[in-house]
Amino acid sequence: MKFATYSSNGETFYGAVTENGMIALNDVCPQWPTLFDAVQAGGLDALAEAAKDRPVSHTKYAYEMVLPNARRILCVGVNFPDRNAEYKDGSEQPKFMSLFPRFASGFTGHDRPLIRPPESAQLDYEGEVAIVIGKGGRRIAQKDAYDHIAALTLCNEGTIRDWVRHAKFNVTQGKNWDRSGAIGPWLVPFADAAQLDDARIVTRVNGEVRQDDVLSRMMHPIRREIEYISTFMTLEPGDIIVTGTPTGSGARLDPPQFLKPGDVVEVEVNGIGVLRNTVQDEAP
Amino acid sequence: MKFATYSSNGETFYGAVTENGMIALNDVCPQWPTLFDAVQAGGLDALAEAAKDRPVSHTKYAYEMVLPNARRILCVGVNFPDRNAEYKDGSEQPKFMSLFPRFASGFTGHDRPLIRPPESAQLDYEGEVAIVIGKGGRRIAQKDAYDHIAALTLCNEGTIRDWVRHAKFNVTQGKNWDRSGAIGPWLVPFADAAQLDDARIVTRVNGEVRQDDVLSRMMHPIRREIEYISTFMTLEPGDIIVTGTPTGSGARLDPPQFLKPGDVVEVEVNGIGVLRNTVQDEAP
Repeated sequence: MKFATYSSNGETFYGAVTENGMIALNDVCPQWPTLFDAVQAGGLDALAEAAKDRPVSHTKYAYEMVLPNARRILCVGVNFPDRNAEYKDGSEQPKFMSLFPRFASGFTGHDRPLIRPPESAQLDYEGEVAIVIGKGGRRIAQKDAYDHIAALTLCNEGTIRDWVRHAKFNVTQGKNWDRSGAIGPWLVPFADAAQLDDARIVTRVNGEVRQDDVLSRMMHPIRREIEYISTFMTLEPGDIIVTGTPTGSGARLDPPQFLKPGDVVEVEVNGIGVLRNTVQDEAP
Repeated sequence: MKFATYSSNGETFYGAVTENGMIALNDVCPQWPTLFDAVQAGGLDALAEAAKDRPVSHTKYAYEMVLPNARRILCVGVNFPDRNAEYKDGSEQPKFMSLFPRFASGFTGHDRPLIRPPESAQLDYEGEVAIVIGKGGRRIAQKDAYDHIAALTLCNEGTIRDWVRHAKFNVTQGKNWDRSGAIGPWLVPFADAAQLDDARIVTRVNGEVRQDDVLSRMMHPIRREIEYISTFMTLEPGDIIVTGTPTGSGARLDPPQFLKPGDVVEVEVNGIGVLRNTVQDEAP
């Protein structure tokens, strides 16, 4: 069972995703006006139960950012070793992960355009797995970390590359352009460690593979991310952690290849799905 | 008229601050369950009207973080020239400001303790003026910027200094410890440019002045902050911009002087008030 936020005829819904369309659940579960509220209440199992044997409500719909009212989204910086450097002595491996928040306004949904603003020609992709916290906690041990995950989704952590280095520190202004990235298409409930441990992430631009790596090669594994982040802040249900991208973003290519209007970017992870976005120049 | 979020007998309220106590307004304006909702709706004038001639509801109360459900808090990095360096040629002045988000969970209210965690002995203060956006917008011109401010408040942008440099970029993990900073005590509606342009900010630790500067010396003035931030993200009512701290934080002293349990930190700005916090070790 997968859950999405979507719109149809100008109204926003959330519901269960089926091959034939969406089963709207917000009217069935009015105690949770949004999918985020359901996640905060630990309600994904109840949503699955509620969707059983229920007919499809919408066959025409557009995906929204999967949790558009998420309050805290924390992203981990590049988190995979360079494929050419991985047999070196590892001395360059940073002890701690790089972290930066992104606001929900920086993300759109599946099958919607990423927006390239007139201020920059350097819109870049970063394919990542995102986890959604289901059980809060502080100073969570690595062995318990997976118990705190409610669901998985995908992120194209789209970046305005030249603005990332405007300031000496902090990538904030390159990472928070309105609708420059995407999260979706849906939430896949997390039930089995293998969903993460055996996952392979592939990012394609116009069908060409640009990023291809396995989550087991992460420098800071997801269990460690949860442990580290929860050291300084109490994690809460509905928090999103975007777990880090493999090498191969457009900025790293020689010469760099940034996204252009009309490009199609796909982020695919086995067991989660494909997050697909086109690229569009911002309307004048 | 000043507005605060506060608690009394285990319940949370918002209301108008008077010399004799709080005039609760959440029951008077049920369309706005929180002060944040009132700000989002442009309701500060209506709150002032509603408070007129109304009796005090609470004489015993504790301040909360002034907008505890604020969704986006953006902080500007150190934003005043060093007093000893200000007569040099200015060549080191950065072209763009450093920006980093903080989550609301990182802040407590006036007269409450800042929490020093067991992981670090380097809790540090940073006194700042915070502005609350009242009118949204994208690509706001500097000349119009002040029209977008609804209210002013104070921030002690408390920082766990050694965690700020855990990663090569991004100060996130030093800036987001639970209740390591404070925002408050109250919102002062913004009506006159002089409230910012003539403001002086002073930070004291146990009565000793540690930071003392005037907002007119900011390297990136508040009008420019609004212009720059709104270039990449659409500002929305209720967004908070913490505008940057003068030199003189504990880390800059020789030798560095970090906060210890029992210390009292005060951030004072003429026309806004005094934000006072003690320091406490996290309960084991």
